[in-house]
Amino acid sequence: MNKIITIGREFGSGGRELGKLLAEKLQIAYYDSEIITEIAKKTALSEEYVERILEKRPALFFPFNHSGTLHTSLAPHFNLSNTIYTEQTEILRDMAQKSDCVIVGRCADYILREKKPFRIFVYADLEHRMARCRANAPENEHLSDKQLRQRILAVDKDRRQYYRFFTGQRWGERKDYDLSINTSLGTLADWAEVIAALVQRLNGN
Amino acid sequence: MNKIITIGREFGSGGRELGKLLAEKLQIAYYDSEIITEIAKKTALSEEYVERILEKRPALFFPFNHSGTLHTSLAPHFNLSNTIYTEQTEILRDMAQKSDCVIVGRCADYILREKKPFRIFVYADLEHRMARCRANAPENEHLSDKQLRQRILAVDKDRRQYYRFFTGQRWGERKDYDLSINTSLGTLADWAEVIAALVQRLNGN
Repeated sequence: MNKIITIGREFGSGGRELGKLLAEKLQIAYYDSEIITEIAKKTALSEEYVERILEKRPALFFPFNHSGTLHTSLAPHFNLSNTIYTEQTEILRDMAQKSDCVIVGRCADYILREKKPFRIFVYADLEHRMARCRANAPENEHLSDKQLRQRILAVDKDRRQYYRFFTGQRWGERKDYDLSINTSLGTLADWAEVIAALVQRLNGN
Repeated sequence: MNKIITIGREFGSGGRELGKLLAEKLQIAYYDSEIITEIAKKTALSEEYVERILEKRPALFFPFNHSGTLHTSLAPHFNLSNTIYTEQTEILRDMAQKSDCVIVGRCADYILREKKPFRIFVYADLEHRMARCRANAPENEHLSDKQLRQRILAVDKDRRQYYRFFTGQRWGERKDYDLSINTSLGTLADWAEVIAALVQRLNGN
């Protein structure tokens, strides 16, 4: 049986870091932005643009175009982002076929559902997420608590809508995951250690 | 630090069995129906009656009384069940004070929130829960699939309403738990082993 582990995560909850630790422990591949790079190469779009589009639900960020109709200003973006999702789906399936892996984000739990991945959702109290964001922020970032809180909630909202749009499921809803963990408690190393042991057990080794 | 572990659970998901395994592994006390026995002793109500009342949200099961007003038929039951909740709260606090323990159900996560228990929620796919119920059913129980499904969902509904009534929180909602596990995967022994290791880690030993 393949070890495919997918991680959905609230912004600032440490999901990416946990994914990396878990992949290290299990000695399997790790993917998140690598996927985007791959997509960018395939579609010849700039990586930055792809990254931006992937974080948003298509219908949400079409620019207002007073000279055109809503239809014409919406359609190209919608199609573009659907194309990216299709590419992404192919790439995720390729990767999961090639080798065991941990995949963070990108609706991988849904896209790879036929492979029955081990589906983790990572979350944390808002204050812990704020602390983690502060610790990881670039030196020149000076957000107030209020601004930081708003940013965290806005990213969550984008993820929720993106996930909902492409999967028809509710982001983070218990029934669609095998394990949901609150990283406000303990260290990510603790969680990685224990989850790696669990995955080994579930795979019978 | 005390090891207080609370387990909320969907009916048929194996929460009680997991709780017992976990208590064994950690060599700490285990409570569920013991609490009820204790309450029954204190209040001099029959254990069976207490058990029945604890599974229901008070306002839901007052008998229709055509000869009285709604108010008079409702009030005694409401008060009785509130009294039981109050007793239960005291007993839970006593027990958690006395020693480390695993407590299944009874809103223990909420009642003991000041002790910062490790809060687990256990759930499973409906088909797995049906299979577990069948395996544990008394020999003379012959429910159809439809009847069994209805019974499972009805117990869940009672738990949800009872929990909501006394805690003001939503039963099973991610943010109020530290760990949510889908026992459709693996064995309860697997989960107990791994959660025991996690609890040890979080307690720094």
